[in-house]
Amino acid sequence: MRIDVLTLFPKMFEGPMGESIIGKARDKNLLEINISNFRDFADNKHKTVDDYPYGGGAGMLLKVQPIYDNLKAIEAKAPTVKKRVILLDPAGKKFDQSIAEEFAQEEHLVFICGHYEGYDERIRSLVTDEISLGDYVLTGGELGAMVMIDATVRLLPDVLGNETSAQTDSHSTGLLEHPQYTRPAEFAGMKVPEVLMNGNHKLIESWQLKESLRRTYLRRPDMLIKFPLTKEMEKMLAEIKQEEKK
Amino acid sequence: MRIDVLTLFPKMFEGPMGESIIGKARDKNLLEINISNFRDFADNKHKTVDDYPYGGGAGMLLKVQPIYDNLKAIEAKAPTVKKRVILLDPAGKKFDQSIAEEFAQEEHLVFICGHYEGYDERIRSLVTDEISLGDYVLTGGELGAMVMIDATVRLLPDVLGNETSAQTDSHSTGLLEHPQYTRPAEFAGMKVPEVLMNGNHKLIESWQLKESLRRTYLRRPDMLIKFPLTKEMEKMLAEIKQEEKK
Repeated sequence: MRIDVLTLFPKMFEGPMGESIIGKARDKNLLEINISNFRDFADNKHKTVDDYPYGGGAGMLLKVQPIYDNLKAIEAKAPTVKKRVILLDPAGKKFDQSIAEEFAQEEHLVFICGHYEGYDERIRSLVTDEISLGDYVLTGGELGAMVMIDATVRLLPDVLGNETSAQTDSHSTGLLEHPQYTRPAEFAGMKVPEVLMNGNHKLIESWQLKESLRRTYLRRPDMLIKFPLTKEMEKMLAEIKQEEKK
Repeated sequence: MRIDVLTLFPKMFEGPMGESIIGKARDKNLLEINISNFRDFADNKHKTVDDYPYGGGAGMLLKVQPIYDNLKAIEAKAPTVKKRVILLDPAGKKFDQSIAEEFAQEEHLVFICGHYEGYDERIRSLVTDEISLGDYVLTGGELGAMVMIDATVRLLPDVLGNETSAQTDSHSTGLLEHPQYTRPAEFAGMKVPEVLMNGNHKLIESWQLKESLRRTYLRRPDMLIKFPLTKEMEKMLAEIKQEEKK
């Protein structure tokens, strides 16, 4: 996979895009990441990338020209590859796991990161997607692009090695994970539940399922609504509701 | 504000926490950020921070001891200050703007970042909050912590200077922003709407309001349900619905 990022703050990417999973994927040549500063493409003497909005209003807008020319340079380097061009924007579609899965199928992703300012509307006509990270305001699109890159790259074949657990995670099984414990059996007065140490696997599995249901019931009841409960689970859930009332 | 981060990948923070708004807040002494590697606190010879789960199961868990001792060291340095200790966890409460606003009121935030693995349940008893960035899976909590720090720090008094627009943003006004344009009036065949260039401010304002409603209607109809519409807005919305049918 190839990833291009257009940003005014290329240094922000130095740490996060070199470490851990992403660093390893790059080392294994599974991933090529290019960070470009679209200020370098500004065609005016002062390398200005923003200007005042037509019709007035506070704040500045990113101009279309530097981004247009930066995208053209990327296109020229890889003209045959179909690109997914993503604009980081608070008014965009909210990023989720299904979008990460879609992105993981692509050959070439291009992320455009704004900073402080709004976009000239014509920039939107140059992209395939407008995506927001969540219902909060960030100073720029850079961290959002890094989050999307991380969520996407870990799904690529051969990227997650043995160092990564095959743990089922909460956003793919439909229930939150049950509590887990590792050694020591007691630390600072805090003990591991007896059932986990007695070696009775049937009891352990049943405890884990019930605690998984309990956590989901207490924290994300919305997830339970969609979940197909077995008879056993329904019984457990009734017990949990009684227990949590006390 | 003081922020501590506990992580196994301190280098990831180098770029993002030195640039832009966060870098400036640190330069102005409005913010102190300390990144610690909790592996340094492991009390075993091999500096191991993880171990197998009791009761079996795939994957490893982060041990409670290194994190416990790292938190104690932070507490010893600032014992009088009330802390908000945040565990980055996919099963946590979903981060949003209201949580950023809460965080911005605190004196001292501590973020604990897991990586690949689950947490020994007892780690949860050491924290005040368990927070998730969104419904997607990341390799670690590091990018999540950076996003939360960015969203929080930009809300601190005196952090946002003149370089930042006073633009109303989509998550605080209740409507998505209308399209905006800056120079040139025509670029690569793409033109700025006439109305924005004729200098009639009443017409411009009306166009902006209508396009703001249109974008919200098309992209985030859920936001319109909660929004108190004036008579004028209701009329515009009726027009928009007609126009979009065509």
